[in-house]
Amino acid sequence: MAVPEPLPESRVSEPSVRRLSAYYRVLGALCGEGENTVSSYALARRAGVTPAQVRKDLSIFGHFGKRGTGYPVITLRQEIQSILGLDRSWRMALAGAGNLAHALFAYKEFPAEGFHIHALFDSDPAKIGQTWNGLVVESVERLVPVVRETSVEIGLITTPAAAAQDVCDLFVRGGVRGILNFAPRKLFVPEGVSLRNVNLAIELESLSFALK
Amino acid sequence: MAVPEPLPESRVSEPSVRRLSAYYRVLGALCGEGENTVSSYALARRAGVTPAQVRKDLSIFGHFGKRGTGYPVITLRQEIQSILGLDRSWRMALAGAGNLAHALFAYKEFPAEGFHIHALFDSDPAKIGQTWNGLVVESVERLVPVVRETSVEIGLITTPAAAAQDVCDLFVRGGVRGILNFAPRKLFVPEGVSLRNVNLAIELESLSFALK
Repeated sequence: MAVPEPLPESRVSEPSVRRLSAYYRVLGALCGEGENTVSSYALARRAGVTPAQVRKDLSIFGHFGKRGTGYPVITLRQEIQSILGLDRSWRMALAGAGNLAHALFAYKEFPAEGFHIHALFDSDPAKIGQTWNGLVVESVERLVPVVRETSVEIGLITTPAAAAQDVCDLFVRGGVRGILNFAPRKLFVPEGVSLRNVNLAIELESLSFALK
Repeated sequence: MAVPEPLPESRVSEPSVRRLSAYYRVLGALCGEGENTVSSYALARRAGVTPAQVRKDLSIFGHFGKRGTGYPVITLRQEIQSILGLDRSWRMALAGAGNLAHALFAYKEFPAEGFHIHALFDSDPAKIGQTWNGLVVESVERLVPVVRETSVEIGLITTPAAAAQDVCDLFVRGGVRGILNFAPRKLFVPEGVSLRNVNLAIELESLSFALK
């Protein structure tokens, strides 16, 4: 197997990143099953895409996947892990200590992939001072200094819609480089800060389209 | 404006459905702002895609969006609403009455788009009998008859990974046509039942890719 060339990452589109995430999960499962190689056909079937799509997506890694031999499971998984930034750990803080925050705080896939929550914030005096698995919920007024002091890189927003932009601005002032927004409203971030929005209704829309 | 031809829905791909969801939200916002028409350029900018992608996606609706006049906001929104199955209401049940379930139960976008939760289930005796906004959490042993009696069409799964397939099977026996799975494991459903998986870590992976 040839050493893959450095990846021209600007060529990797957002949908392509999502497919890499899917391949990464399939490859993790294949590792667990003791498989050494996987064909584009088998990888495609388990990731829910076409074999041609797999070959196209993985062509960015250079000379992986020779005809007849398939892709090397462990090496390919490591490559994708590195591309996705999952070969390191990320420091996160969460603003809005409600039910969704509880669910995210307990979500085992986050720490398993290197995403760790180091600070919690809320504006509700009834929540400030609560201890979640050893971590104290702090006042949102303390967000900027705490985020700075604890070198938080990613801010999670699970506040009501009305508070989301203010909290987002505080995260930006605190120096985060990325925001994951669960509040159902459009947020604005300055250049240099990455924003992703999770809209839980979109998945239901895809389902209702299929059921209609 | 010509009357759009019936949509050949088999031509609508999954990513295309997701973009229709995004356009649907932008068009809703534009309605609220009192706009009558929108250019493919403006729609693209607000939905985060290219104008060419907008024109291609919306070409399925026939003769919308003549050069120089733009798309009619209200009519196009109604068309997309109908395509996505959002012009009717959907009956849902939720299994796994934990924090994520609480968050989904309180998620205002669901009822706003016609998605209503009519039953809640858990296997924990401490949760069975709880009342959530007037709805009683029932034993998962009652899932099949309750789902049948209340004509539930969509099952939401927020159980731990280990319980998810069993609950999924119960939903299928109860006659649901669609499953939205939040548990971090792959589920199997028989033909004729649609499955969508929400993986909250995938959004973080997209973010870590961008930040790396």
